[in-house]
Amino acid sequence: MADEPIAKIPYSLNSKAVADATKMWLNKRGVNLQEIAELVMFLQKKYYPNLTMEECVHNVEMVLSKREVQNAVLTGIQLDMLAEEGKLFPPLQDMIENDEGLYGVDEILAFSIVNVYGSIGFTNYGYVDKLKPGVLERLNDKNTGQIHTFLDDIVGAVAAAASSRIAHRKQAEREIDLELPHSPEDREEAARKLAEHEKQPE
Amino acid sequence: MADEPIAKIPYSLNSKAVADATKMWLNKRGVNLQEIAELVMFLQKKYYPNLTMEECVHNVEMVLSKREVQNAVLTGIQLDMLAEEGKLFPPLQDMIENDEGLYGVDEILAFSIVNVYGSIGFTNYGYVDKLKPGVLERLNDKNTGQIHTFLDDIVGAVAAAASSRIAHRKQAEREIDLELPHSPEDREEAARKLAEHEKQPE
Amino acid sequence: MADEPIAKIPYSLNSKAVADATKMWLNKRGVNLQEIAELVMFLQKKYYPNLTMEECVHNVEMVLSKREVQNAVLTGIQLDMLAEEGKLFPPLQDMIENDEGLYGVDEILAFSIVNVYGSIGFTNYGYVDKLKPGVLERLNDKNTGQIHTFLDDIVGAVAAAASSRIAHRKQAEREIDLELPHSPEDREEAARKLAEHEKQPE
Amino acid sequence: MADEPIAKIPYSLNSKAVADATKMWLNKRGVNLQEIAELVMFLQKKYYPNLTMEECVHNVEMVLSKREVQNAVLTGIQLDMLAEEGKLFPPLQDMIENDEGLYGVDEILAFSIVNVYGSIGFTNYGYVDKLKPGVLERLNDKNTGQIHTFLDDIVGAVAAAASSRIAHRKQAEREIDLELPHSPEDREEAARKLAEHEKQPE
Repeated sequence: MADEPIAKIPYSLNSKAVADATKMWLNKRGVNLQEIAELVMFLQKKYYPNLTMEECVHNVEMVLSKREVQNAVLTGIQLDMLAEEGKLFPPLQDMIENDEGLYGVDEILAFSIVNVYGSIGFTNYGYVDKLKPGVLERLNDKNTGQIHTFLDDIVGAVAAAASSRIAHRKQAEREIDLELPHSPEDREEAARKLAEHEKQPE
Repeated sequence: MADEPIAKIPYSLNSKAVADATKMWLNKRGVNLQEIAELVMFLQKKYYPNLTMEECVHNVEMVLSKREVQNAVLTGIQLDMLAEEGKLFPPLQDMIENDEGLYGVDEILAFSIVNVYGSIGFTNYGYVDKLKPGVLERLNDKNTGQIHTFLDDIVGAVAAAASSRIAHRKQAEREIDLELPHSPEDREEAARKLAEHEKQPE
Repeated sequence: MADEPIAKIPYSLNSKAVADATKMWLNKRGVNLQEIAELVMFLQKKYYPNLTMEECVHNVEMVLSKREVQNAVLTGIQLDMLAEEGKLFPPLQDMIENDEGLYGVDEILAFSIVNVYGSIGFTNYGYVDKLKPGVLERLNDKNTGQIHTFLDDIVGAVAAAASSRIAHRKQAEREIDLELPHSPEDREEAARKLAEHEKQPE
Repeated sequence: MADEPIAKIPYSLNSKAVADATKMWLNKRGVNLQEIAELVMFLQKKYYPNLTMEECVHNVEMVLSKREVQNAVLTGIQLDMLAEEGKLFPPLQDMIENDEGLYGVDEILAFSIVNVYGSIGFTNYGYVDKLKPGVLERLNDKNTGQIHTFLDDIVGAVAAAASSRIAHRKQAEREIDLELPHSPEDREEAARKLAEHEKQPE
């Protein structure tokens, strides 16, 4: 991050472009949201027996709408692709190409994703990263010619973050059902977002 | 975090109670939101000359509405108070009482706060934690009999997180002004929250 | 951490006392190093078939000799004990007593332990924290009257960190066997430590 | 990190090659150890008036001898260089080229460096990253045609980690001077390293 007054920079980011690129690149690298949602279901069904695939997909989408997550996804996929093309300098090329045991930058990016929904997702991340269910098994297959050293961990992290998001939402729903008082900030936020939306050209 | 099906646990958390306790304890320990907002203004005014104190206070409130933040604030204040009362076991009592240089759990809790709005807040946290402007100077005064080993770092972290939140919001506002397309998730989210709010008894 | 010149503080930490307290409290709370070493063996035996229990115990001891780790262990055990005695203020007391799903400070402390040996330990931590093998099953038993909300995660984190340490050491051993050149810093460090040791009164 | 038995992988990492590449690339990108040591001196001289530049250089070297640090340095420099050559895909190219305010992967890598010596370095990192003294001012100059979006933060992080290492060492030295008992692990470790060194072909 630059620590410069933003006014000085003629460059202007388009958040929508970053969000779209994230989904596009996940797709190009062979990962669809449904598969990530299946990891979420795998992690959460025993806690919430009524959890639907629609909810899982929705929560994955919400995780992917966060800039911090998009940054990690795009950076990781770019490094995987450059390694696949043999374009990194020697020791780094070897480390990423071979998914080397002492190279942990993939885990570091994964953690920046999990962290967006807090520490309660750490365990779920480690669990799916070890077991490699579903899409993670395919991404981890070393015989395809493709390199997914980063994407493998990133997909597990998105699923873990979506699981944390569900835990927070389910608690909110339970409290509403119990007619408990609810956070005033939530309402303020909803009102603000709606106003923003109405101001917005379509 | 327990990894037990929540159904088994008769205990039911009331989020509102946790949120209220967070504000109450900050207040009891001598910190008001206005002072934290002043730290935010100190950190952000050079980037956003039109930033108002109202916006700063609002963003501090939003940071404090996050469960991950509330957990850190409550845990840190509790440890400060127990140290003040001399109720911790010996080596820990000494370390917290003396804000010992090699004891870094206060920074760890601070980081769990900053992280909620992503890595872009790390720099702002370190900067105010070193300079100790405003309320941080008072909290760091070792001659008051009060112990704020944790609160000191926590308040700086809340201000840094609020600064990150502002950076994200200002980017969104700029894009709306430029009539750029906006994230569909934001609208969906706003709609969902509003629906939730309407369902809610008052 | 205080940001004060240490000269001003009459308090002087005794590192040995902190290290001894860490082992003593682990023991008092019913955890012995052998059991943590068994978790390490569980995590590492498939990668290093010749790994011995002696090596596992040694690596656990090395992890526990780090100040950052000692700080987390002591802070976590203290919070568990205070919760057991009902001495925390209300919302925090309930959250720790019930190992509440949205309370993640235990994971945060655990991560500060894993991090000391880098990001490659994240996966191992999550894995044992989910499976709860051996000592972790006992610590996680909610019917004993004891509260191990923190210790549970801390023990898993120490085992994960020891596993990371082993991965680094095994790589070094392999390179020595292959007669590859070795890091000059390692030798310099060993020489320095020995000199320090000889200077030291006994 | 791959979670595969290492025996399966014919690839064998040479740690010395990774360490050498780290120093070589830092040098090629215009950063020498002396300049990083000056940042350390800037951060630490008020706490340790007798601190020498030799000690600062030595501690920087020790930080750079850690694999976790080398991984972050190499990955960050590689991304800077690819951005300089315009070889990243569109949204990422723009974000790194412009050191975009909401792109925080540079801070994430920086933090993986600081973390190796624990949380006490967070404050020092944020402080130098904001003030940009010495070499950081030059790296942060946007008018050179060079891109140091990552290196800028990485150099500050190495200096912060070296400062944390000094804090730990100075405490150990103070305890030896006071004839306090010293950690048995340190001696064991020194003995082990020396034995390893003697076994080692030269």
